[in-house]
Amino acid sequence: MGTSNGAKSRIAVDAMGSDLGPAEIVAAAKLALGEFRDLSPITLVGNEAVLKPLVAEAGLSGNENVSIFHASEVITMDDKPLMAIKRKKDASMIRAIELVKAGEAGAAVSCGNTGCLVGAGILKLRTLDGIDRAALAPVIPRANGHFILIDAGANPEAKPDHLVHNAILGTHFCRMELGVEKPRVGLLTIGTEEGKGNALIAETHESLKRIGDLINYVGPVEGFQVFCDEVDVVVCDGFVGNICLKSWESLAKFFSNELKSQLKANPVRMAGAVLAKGAFNALRNRIKPERYGGAPLLGLRGNLIKAHGSANRQALKNAFHDASEMIKIDLNHRIEADIARANEAIQRVVV
Amino acid sequence: MGTSNGAKSRIAVDAMGSDLGPAEIVAAAKLALGEFRDLSPITLVGNEAVLKPLVAEAGLSGNENVSIFHASEVITMDDKPLMAIKRKKDASMIRAIELVKAGEAGAAVSCGNTGCLVGAGILKLRTLDGIDRAALAPVIPRANGHFILIDAGANPEAKPDHLVHNAILGTHFCRMELGVEKPRVGLLTIGTEEGKGNALIAETHESLKRIGDLINYVGPVEGFQVFCDEVDVVVCDGFVGNICLKSWESLAKFFSNELKSQLKANPVRMAGAVLAKGAFNALRNRIKPERYGGAPLLGLRGNLIKAHGSANRQALKNAFHDASEMIKIDLNHRIEADIARANEAIQRVVV
Repeated sequence: MGTSNGAKSRIAVDAMGSDLGPAEIVAAAKLALGEFRDLSPITLVGNEAVLKPLVAEAGLSGNENVSIFHASEVITMDDKPLMAIKRKKDASMIRAIELVKAGEAGAAVSCGNTGCLVGAGILKLRTLDGIDRAALAPVIPRANGHFILIDAGANPEAKPDHLVHNAILGTHFCRMELGVEKPRVGLLTIGTEEGKGNALIAETHESLKRIGDLINYVGPVEGFQVFCDEVDVVVCDGFVGNICLKSWESLAKFFSNELKSQLKANPVRMAGAVLAKGAFNALRNRIKPERYGGAPLLGLRGNLIKAHGSANRQALKNAFHDASEMIKIDLNHRIEADIARANEAIQRVVV
Repeated sequence: MGTSNGAKSRIAVDAMGSDLGPAEIVAAAKLALGEFRDLSPITLVGNEAVLKPLVAEAGLSGNENVSIFHASEVITMDDKPLMAIKRKKDASMIRAIELVKAGEAGAAVSCGNTGCLVGAGILKLRTLDGIDRAALAPVIPRANGHFILIDAGANPEAKPDHLVHNAILGTHFCRMELGVEKPRVGLLTIGTEEGKGNALIAETHESLKRIGDLINYVGPVEGFQVFCDEVDVVVCDGFVGNICLKSWESLAKFFSNELKSQLKANPVRMAGAVLAKGAFNALRNRIKPERYGGAPLLGLRGNLIKAHGSANRQALKNAFHDASEMIKIDLNHRIEADIARANEAIQRVVV
């Protein structure tokens, strides 16, 4: 990691894992390189026979900041993680991660199968010193801004130490991504009295209080607080986080469909909907923000970003920018230092 | 329980626990008795000096189906459950539950403090034969209808057997409340492949397959499926369920606020909003349905319904109707029979 090493500062992009196809990835690369002058160079990982013409069409053939790394296979949404990682050794996603592992890239970005990406990221890159589990950290819209949900599904059987690490990982990512200097960290639970929730929460709460100088821990938070402007980082285990994330998406879609069908119910409403169209578009942009193109898998020896399967070029452009930022500020180096201090503080309690 | 015993078929209503005050409760009683000819008689539990004039004003003074049971204290939203149950022995909520326990009422309904109601319900009524934990079962809107979420917070540290019992409790309640003869039961988890999720889910999944003749188990479901028309009963532990329920409410509020502020952003949108008003009202009615006035706390030796703190007379009317139905069909008797069969099936696996 670091900015001095040219090779390491590249972004390895899985060019084959998008629902929108490799052309969207190439378009995103062009967009990102045009907009961000100091963006890390991009290596498109995937089938050269497919990518070369796309790069040429995009007018990127001679661009020194774009290269192609051939990979013959593609991991699909139907692939089972362990099987895919074992069998599809030349998959674009796997190769992109291996470039990070080998030090030939400073970050990898993929829109592909989440289970495979998490599995391959953990198996290939391994966790940082002092961390046992990786955590997925999407950015979620809420009143007056956004918050970081961590973990959204990488670690479904978390122990208190894992949640403490999530708090630190989320704090660092929030600082970088949302520009909040001292992110308010909340522990997601039920009932905010001390001792409520469950055993995992009770123990984590005690540990989080002990590392108070490393994070801005505001205490337990309930479900009804997450979309209010009360916390910037919501800490939970991957089981709860994944169910929340997916059910929130499901609820948003349900609302949107219901509203659409109600607006179509008669001509007066339809006329109203036409006039109010700007408001619906604004809300859609607010809750499906392309500004945050991906969720990083944090806690690994290498930067890895999971973009949405159907992320468009705008979203991907921002995912590439995030990857570049993670490399530039050496996010993992900062994380490791705080994790070491936190582990000391936690162990002091245990002894 | 049963319909033959007149005393037992009364509904004991905590008349003091509503955010809208006791007048709303009395108004709901009037509405319910007017609309449902075979409704169980209602006993209003609370301060007689407050309730008597309200009952008179409502023209219910001579009504043989309305009585008052005096209770001098009130449990507030700030009360801590165990402390309140211990100290406020003459609280309206506690007395209402005690009437059920004593066989003087067949069901209790309260809008009060959820933690206190769950705690008092469990302590006073105890669980049904074969069940160790109670479960809260709200009705949630989704595409094409509604589903039952069970458990929404009564039991935050569930074991596999508890979740199996939730599946049976939810099935019976869904049949009664939503009129679905064979409710599709899903186990809420992350990833629907066998073996995914966590240890609790894996073991529960095996047990649910064994009781296949008692419920219509469709398998594990992910967060993104709950608001689609895929399941009628969503089974989870109270920790996950409570976080989901509250975060869904929080998300709905966030959407609503964002949309409102976007619609007010300029005169054209405002004009559109006026024309489309019917659609917004329809959506609001759809997602905040007063049709389902409360969530039962299932699994207890007695029927207990938790209504929303700010439930209005329409919602309460329906909660009273639910209470009456639970008494009439002798819901708990049906549940106990299935629980016994399920426990046999589960033990067969263990041995």
